[in-house]
Amino acid sequence: MADVGKSIADQIKEQGEVVRKLKAEKAGIDKITEEVSKLLALKAQQGSDKDEKAGGKFVLKTAKGTRDFNPRQMVIRQQAFDKITTCFKRHGAETIDTPVFELKEVLTGKYGEDSKLIYDLADQGGELLSLRYDLTVPFARFLAMNKVASIKRYQLGKVYRRDNPAMTKGRFREFFQCDFDIAGLTDPMIPDVECVRVVTEILDSLDLSEHVIKINHRKILDGLFEACGVPDTQFRTICSAVDKLDKSPWADVRREMTDEKGLDPEKADQIGQYVLRAGQDDLVEQLLADTKLCASKSAIEGLEALKLFFRYAELYGVKKRVKFDMSLARGLDYYTGIIYEAVLTNQNPEEGVGSIAGGGRYDNLVALFDPKAKAVPCVGVSIGIERILAILENREANLKMRTVETQVYVAAAQKNLLEDRMKICAELWDIGIKTEMSYKANPKLLGQLQTCEEQGIPWAIIIGQSELEKGVVKLRNVVSRHEEEIERTKLTDVLKEKLSAQVV
Amino acid sequence: MADVGKSIADQIKEQGEVVRKLKAEKAGIDKITEEVSKLLALKAQQGSDKDEKAGGKFVLKTAKGTRDFNPRQMVIRQQAFDKITTCFKRHGAETIDTPVFELKEVLTGKYGEDSKLIYDLADQGGELLSLRYDLTVPFARFLAMNKVASIKRYQLGKVYRRDNPAMTKGRFREFFQCDFDIAGLTDPMIPDVECVRVVTEILDSLDLSEHVIKINHRKILDGLFEACGVPDTQFRTICSAVDKLDKSPWADVRREMTDEKGLDPEKADQIGQYVLRAGQDDLVEQLLADTKLCASKSAIEGLEALKLFFRYAELYGVKKRVKFDMSLARGLDYYTGIIYEAVLTNQNPEEGVGSIAGGGRYDNLVALFDPKAKAVPCVGVSIGIERILAILENREANLKMRTVETQVYVAAAQKNLLEDRMKICAELWDIGIKTEMSYKANPKLLGQLQTCEEQGIPWAIIIGQSELEKGVVKLRNVVSRHEEEIERTKLTDVLKEKLSAQVV
Repeated sequence: MADVGKSIADQIKEQGEVVRKLKAEKAGIDKITEEVSKLLALKAQQGSDKDEKAGGKFVLKTAKGTRDFNPRQMVIRQQAFDKITTCFKRHGAETIDTPVFELKEVLTGKYGEDSKLIYDLADQGGELLSLRYDLTVPFARFLAMNKVASIKRYQLGKVYRRDNPAMTKGRFREFFQCDFDIAGLTDPMIPDVECVRVVTEILDSLDLSEHVIKINHRKILDGLFEACGVPDTQFRTICSAVDKLDKSPWADVRREMTDEKGLDPEKADQIGQYVLRAGQDDLVEQLLADTKLCASKSAIEGLEALKLFFRYAELYGVKKRVKFDMSLARGLDYYTGIIYEAVLTNQNPEEGVGSIAGGGRYDNLVALFDPKAKAVPCVGVSIGIERILAILENREANLKMRTVETQVYVAAAQKNLLEDRMKICAELWDIGIKTEMSYKANPKLLGQLQTCEEQGIPWAIIIGQSELEKGVVKLRNVVSRHEEEIERTKLTDVLKEKLSAQVV
Repeated sequence: MADVGKSIADQIKEQGEVVRKLKAEKAGIDKITEEVSKLLALKAQQGSDKDEKAGGKFVLKTAKGTRDFNPRQMVIRQQAFDKITTCFKRHGAETIDTPVFELKEVLTGKYGEDSKLIYDLADQGGELLSLRYDLTVPFARFLAMNKVASIKRYQLGKVYRRDNPAMTKGRFREFFQCDFDIAGLTDPMIPDVECVRVVTEILDSLDLSEHVIKINHRKILDGLFEACGVPDTQFRTICSAVDKLDKSPWADVRREMTDEKGLDPEKADQIGQYVLRAGQDDLVEQLLADTKLCASKSAIEGLEALKLFFRYAELYGVKKRVKFDMSLARGLDYYTGIIYEAVLTNQNPEEGVGSIAGGGRYDNLVALFDPKAKAVPCVGVSIGIERILAILENREANLKMRTVETQVYVAAAQKNLLEDRMKICAELWDIGIKTEMSYKANPKLLGQLQTCEEQGIPWAIIIGQSELEKGVVKLRNVVSRHEEEIERTKLTDVLKEKLSAQVV
């Protein structure tokens, strides 16, 4: 992984060395392909950063901020998706899918300052369309359109943001979100806590480093701004300044509030006395005793909600993972209640930092789409898989991993046996055995056996002219290299037995 | 399904009746949702066909030619995907993924007359991008970019075409393709036949009506045009006229050739003597004896290739599924050898007609992307899943189907047991049991048990104050309604046993 400070040119040079070394060592094709991909991604970044096309020559690359997944990366991705989906199903969720693009007006006015990052489609006649920016707004549109009053749904899908990519750290323009949302009228905080439980179950199952889930409540933020005398009209913009406290020191955030956004410095200092605080239910209690803050009805409501949250979090066994962080604000406009953000702790600094999951309550979003403005209260979380995949790919970079599931390879010991190999393959496919053979008419035996060993195929059938005439074939255990002769007519039965034994 | 001739307004009226009837009958929510979706799709079609927005009011719909998948449709889709993927893996394929959009120039010049159907992204500064039109061109770009000389890969993904949608017949602007391709140098026709075998395995496993796979060869078409005296420069345009023979009678196609495209009528008639013929290897032999056609070297090469194809198709057990159809041309520019198209036969006419899979050999596509023009010969097929899903959804419309996998529901018989329910849920989640409970603090027992029955949840745990004090809970078999008392401390052990027993 490249360091932050290095120039692209230096990174390309270093990555080129990595590739040359692997080739010299005759490393596995997967490993080489992977490192070549990184090299190409860096070159592409250089290319598109300069916005030039190498003297008009066609540049062979994926679009800026996007990437391909090679077979090895797909195995890692699929394993992660399986774990995430298993958890969502454990909590009783069903799944839906929505199109990759929506009418532009569906997305308009939902993302605050981030709306500039939305990808629009070209106007080619007909409707004005945009690529989805998250899965939440299309979900709300789906609920309103189908008049669904209550559902627990999960959805895994790609979303699109014209952000500044940092691909080595898992920040892409096309990336996956894995969402879990509970829609419908409920008693307070019960589904809200379950969302946190879902995140901890998933991050634990992926065997990542320790994590903490920061929480806050929009009503506490609103109450805090009210108590500190921020005018209503400035809530949003001051909120987005506060949101930067995870990356910038207070002095910078304060300067943004006062110099850029014209807030009275005294009010900014009052805000600073609150938003730098973090804790657990103890902090909730302290703030409930804070007469200045509790002059705001909104603040009291938010604090009471978090009090209940901590009570339930204890029952669900997740309290120790939660931190009440008053600086957590989250940019999206649609949140109305609790907000969350999960971050990895004790992490390898090379793997980058930042949130890997986030979410919150959005009780008014569905009503925006309903012709009668009927509200469907919702709460949900979204797992960002790219950063997790970067960690897993890095961790498993040197592990041997199968990308195919072939069980049997049909090999020939001599020439002119293509048709016999084909007949055997067809028989095995007929009974569902995963079978391959060489696409050469007359392949060499050694090459065929090497393929089996390289690809980890457990069994090879070896046929020869004289054996076929005797009505037998050889079955080779690729790992032990033990071979046995079996009757041609009993081949499928024997293999069925061997393969079912192998599963156990 | 709507008839072809009916106006949208009539279709909307009819579909409205269907929905009203279902609501009156208090049909299942899934069924109602599904029919409401169809109604909305029709209304949307009406809306966008007229290109008006109901007097400036916000129209709640998905983009033209796209659709949502509700939970029930997702179950059907996932089952189909699983069968398709199982087949691809049975043939030793690994998978990759590519971004939804590519640099515009990657797609340029690959799709002939269909290029006008490509979706472009708006120019928002930076690169010019287009949504992928198929998975084949991005795959070729991937091979060239990563210098992969040989791979068997499958890929399931959405592609985009600004075509005229006919959604009730499964023709969409956003739709899935399930692709299987074999890239690399091989001996002739071995992988080409395997692709046909893959299609038949998949269509059989999906339990659709009978199908036939039409084949032809680009070299036969070229040879035929040459033998009939069509100028080189007109091959493509005459080819695209021939391609319409599956929908139009010969007289219309002939008129297009002569009147629109200026072909000598005598030459058109000569073409007609060939392209209306179809058969099997018998036709190949007849044509190999046709001295006029075999004046073309290209025709002989194509015919010899098909001769070999039929030989191998017999060995792979798929010969009876194959029809050599001289009118099959396929629009895409990149094919160089055999071409295929699978169609369902004996089909319910309401389900629409047309191809559900297609493909062919494209030996020069990768070279277009390689800086040194290095060729990687490829052959592959693409399964179009939308038409298949329309059939499956229609067939299973009245079947009961679970969209969640919940195994245990934790219910309370009295008030004030929320926290006890939460603790039990957490315990069961801890050991991986799929568990749900009501999100109400004090739900009614009857409602909770109804939820179990409606959703097909097999087990309910029922807790009561006095039972908890005695250290027991009730376990209810939802189907048989049999209840037994079990010790609270042994709850997880008992459930683990019951659930593993149920799996067997």
